[in-house]
Amino acid sequence: MTDVDVVVVGAGLSGLSAARAVVAAGRSVVVLEARDRVAGRNHGQVLDNGVPIEMGGQWVGPTQTAVLGLVEELGLELFPGYVDGDGVTIYRGNVTRYGDWSFGLDAQTGAEVGRMVGRLEELARTVSLSSPWLTDRAAELDSMTVAEWVRAGTDHQGAIAFWDTLVPGLLCAEPHEVSLLHFLFYVKSGDSLKTLFSTAGGAQDARVVGGTHQISERMAAELGDVVRLGCRVHSIHQDDRGVRVSYEGGEIRAANAIVSLPPALAGRLHYAPPLPPARDALTQQMPMGSVIKIQVVYDTPFWRQDGLNGVVMSMDDALSVTADNSPPDASCGIIVGFFEGEHARRAGALGVEQRRKLALDMLVKAFGPKAAEPVEYVEKDWTAEEFTRGCYGGRLGAGVWTQFGSALAEPCGRIHWAGSETSDIWNGYMDGAVRSGRRAAAEILDDATT
Amino acid sequence: MTDVDVVVVGAGLSGLSAARAVVAAGRSVVVLEARDRVAGRNHGQVLDNGVPIEMGGQWVGPTQTAVLGLVEELGLELFPGYVDGDGVTIYRGNVTRYGDWSFGLDAQTGAEVGRMVGRLEELARTVSLSSPWLTDRAAELDSMTVAEWVRAGTDHQGAIAFWDTLVPGLLCAEPHEVSLLHFLFYVKSGDSLKTLFSTAGGAQDARVVGGTHQISERMAAELGDVVRLGCRVHSIHQDDRGVRVSYEGGEIRAANAIVSLPPALAGRLHYAPPLPPARDALTQQMPMGSVIKIQVVYDTPFWRQDGLNGVVMSMDDALSVTADNSPPDASCGIIVGFFEGEHARRAGALGVEQRRKLALDMLVKAFGPKAAEPVEYVEKDWTAEEFTRGCYGGRLGAGVWTQFGSALAEPCGRIHWAGSETSDIWNGYMDGAVRSGRRAAAEILDDATT
Repeated sequence: MTDVDVVVVGAGLSGLSAARAVVAAGRSVVVLEARDRVAGRNHGQVLDNGVPIEMGGQWVGPTQTAVLGLVEELGLELFPGYVDGDGVTIYRGNVTRYGDWSFGLDAQTGAEVGRMVGRLEELARTVSLSSPWLTDRAAELDSMTVAEWVRAGTDHQGAIAFWDTLVPGLLCAEPHEVSLLHFLFYVKSGDSLKTLFSTAGGAQDARVVGGTHQISERMAAELGDVVRLGCRVHSIHQDDRGVRVSYEGGEIRAANAIVSLPPALAGRLHYAPPLPPARDALTQQMPMGSVIKIQVVYDTPFWRQDGLNGVVMSMDDALSVTADNSPPDASCGIIVGFFEGEHARRAGALGVEQRRKLALDMLVKAFGPKAAEPVEYVEKDWTAEEFTRGCYGGRLGAGVWTQFGSALAEPCGRIHWAGSETSDIWNGYMDGAVRSGRRAAAEILDDATT
Repeated sequence: MTDVDVVVVGAGLSGLSAARAVVAAGRSVVVLEARDRVAGRNHGQVLDNGVPIEMGGQWVGPTQTAVLGLVEELGLELFPGYVDGDGVTIYRGNVTRYGDWSFGLDAQTGAEVGRMVGRLEELARTVSLSSPWLTDRAAELDSMTVAEWVRAGTDHQGAIAFWDTLVPGLLCAEPHEVSLLHFLFYVKSGDSLKTLFSTAGGAQDARVVGGTHQISERMAAELGDVVRLGCRVHSIHQDDRGVRVSYEGGEIRAANAIVSLPPALAGRLHYAPPLPPARDALTQQMPMGSVIKIQVVYDTPFWRQDGLNGVVMSMDDALSVTADNSPPDASCGIIVGFFEGEHARRAGALGVEQRRKLALDMLVKAFGPKAAEPVEYVEKDWTAEEFTRGCYGGRLGAGVWTQFGSALAEPCGRIHWAGSETSDIWNGYMDGAVRSGRRAAAEILDDATT
């Protein structure tokens, strides 16, 4: 009566990881993908000069063992990000170079930020990763936003500006848009704040030669024609016997479904019978982050000659974070940058020329006049992507974890939920996506073998 | 090339009001409704004893001129809510009767609440109803939750408990789930906090004989067979020539569409071309409130003999607000009550017998042992309703008004947005729904006549 054992909705890292696990267990699978490509929030492009770049997720770090193992298994190679030299911080018109852990903050600001980071790391360690709503004092931590925690914790303008840049840097959302409990969960999920914002040894440690989208492409190639592109799923019916997943142009019957979409998009499918209230409510309130990723290309990574590593944090500019994104052979110089949170929303309403100007203004402050003349400028506004609608991932505002968090990964009958948003380890990252797909597949396979 | 001039999605008060305005202007319309009934968040039922009751919105007030005019025009009649006698407040085990504006609060709590209500009304008057994001200090007011405002404003436990009951009472959401700017907007939209929580002369002044669902039913009867039930719309295509609205079983072509669904549900349709990022992002973060409405039926309104008006506010119980909902002839006694916000979510996870017990426990505290033996108990969990997914309406958490508010009612090409959530007057109420439908129709008609 069924076409396959499992039907997977979404051919990003999580969906393909799930499908691969299903196939490895000797079961049959079909993966339905709305786009005409796989890889979801990973997306490879090629510059005019022939250099491959990534317009989506690109970095991996040493504790991301799931995605690292997969990279190796698929025969892909890593290269370290460029880290030699000083970083730059821009604040109140001052452009400060630093080669230590000061982040270019003055002593007083640095001390205040350090104190607060310590306090936050301490709080983060109290969070239950598997069940954040069971954390000690969960109700209290979830009843306040990160902004409220910052305001209650300091009057120091520099420290406030730091958090106002750091939080969007991690979640593409403003501190008042994020529950403190969610932020603590997110931090612990990726080990620590220091790990999250670090390059070497941290979340921005290394890249995949040729681009991260190849991880999905190679999985899809292995899976073969069971991965079907251009199939936008619109509804899922389930009953005692199985699921029927309908897309424009057809339908697949299976014993189980894995929906490998962020909750905000998963909520847009039609479910029959309807999903329980808590699951539905969750999908109403896990919005995606706002980010425009840009790559600015130069003939050479000229900042390296000035002793700069390309990392810039600006608390003054719309483009708030950059890094050196040049290819391993340094055949050209590339700066990757991000408009995040409110900056992304405002910049998104402008034209490309205005955004380019905003970006170059910031890069000139950081790297000097040479930065004004790139050979190419490319960008991607992830909020405009119909089948993602925001990056890096979904976030939870005040109150959602404690009220609806248990619905995030709990299966609804024959429907299982994957996607990086459902991972307790490296939530929101590629590593979390891989783990989530395997976990969803295991739920089904474990069931099937008992 | 088109079937009709305007296609309306949703046959609630707003959609039907829009359709009526279109027809009144001599244009043609079709209304597509997913349910097998009209009236959306109004819903009539009949008790075992034959008395009609309302499981959705039921009250109207004197400044709600749009819905009041419609009620009169459609030949329906009003009757006043029962208000004679004392109210009851339950707090920390104390059951207090009151016949004044004290709300049964002790003098100190009352003074603190009074001071804060005054401050809130003052702040509310500063809000721009047409463009809340242009309010003076909008960014500041929107960057904090109501909970943060309360915590910053008082340490008084009684006052905090009051707000923790009042805010869910109005929005079916907790204070930390609501932006201060949104709360201020909502309050001013309905005139004042006093108006919102008042019975006689306020938002709970009068009811419609036979039930508010008749407003929609009579509009639908007038419109005739252009109102099509059981048509769940799933996608809207638009181009230079018009719109194509597809539902299970067919499609309608029209010059324009009016989507008369709350944003959380409107976001679940498929749009081609895709909607702009700001509109899409708004639909990701305007979740519906959580409420279970109950009606508890007795042979007589026995509390009246005890000098009670049926209004109870409990800061101790899951059932936090009640009122006398007996029919005009008092042929039986009915108490209407609400599980709201977190109470609704917790109660929703229980069985009906447990909810009934929670409700009766509270009613016995307020009205004595006679309350323990109702002749009937009925309830409706609006979060479980597939085509509403929460009441009373959609709310905005911290940051959303200032970032995405302008997308709430701004047409996207040929698609216009109605629904009470889009109204600047009586937002979230039946009156706002009627106004929103007329406004959306006027946008199209004004365009068409130029």
